[in-house]
Amino acid sequence: MSRSSRRRTPLAHPATGEIDLLDVLHALSDPTRMTIVRTLRAEPERACGTFPVDVAASTLSHHFKVLRESGLIRQREEANRRLTALRAADLEERFPGLLDTVLTAYAQG
Amino acid sequence: MSRSSRRRTPLAHPATGEIDLLDVLHALSDPTRMTIVRTLRAEPERACGTFPVDVAASTLSHHFKVLRESGLIRQREEANRRLTALRAADLEERFPGLLDTVLTAYAQG
Repeated sequence: MSRSSRRRTPLAHPATGEIDLLDVLHALSDPTRMTIVRTLRAEPERACGTFPVDVAASTLSHHFKVLRESGLIRQREEANRRLTALRAADLEERFPGLLDTVLTAYAQG
Repeated sequence: MSRSSRRRTPLAHPATGEIDLLDVLHALSDPTRMTIVRTLRAEPERACGTFPVDVAASTLSHHFKVLRESGLIRQREEANRRLTALRAADLEERFPGLLDTVLTAYAQG
């Protein structure tokens, strides 16, 4: 399989009802991933290379995977870009108030 | 240093103002540690061997260390026992609403 066709493999995302709280807490417990989530809070959808984080591409890719598999973000391919969005509504449906409470706590910390 | 005097070394706990949100989220992201926190919620102080968790003593000791260093629990020695309590008031002061929101989310998950 060529690299470009591999990149087209649909990305796996948990259904809203399957989002696991412990996975979400783990995903949020890292400073880079927290920065990604906070950045997406302010902006509905962003291309992968545009986040204000200073880590290697492979590390960033790992962080996006953890966030995606936890249900915190949704990613989709569009032309040559991978676009990332926060699943704020899904999170709110699954765990009401959780994301707000955590982000508020982080902002005041 | 003998084993018994080592056990008397005062246990380190972060001050309330130094409790770090990412450490708290990490501590809560494990099912055994979550069970310990939920058990302590219902009971002010408990001896270490009395938690309803099925893990090796060394693993349990590690989990208590992670919880203690995150600021979620306080432990003290009394006679031959190590007693563990949830720092619910300290957490509430540091991150209002956080523990309630997380435990409610977990209970409904």
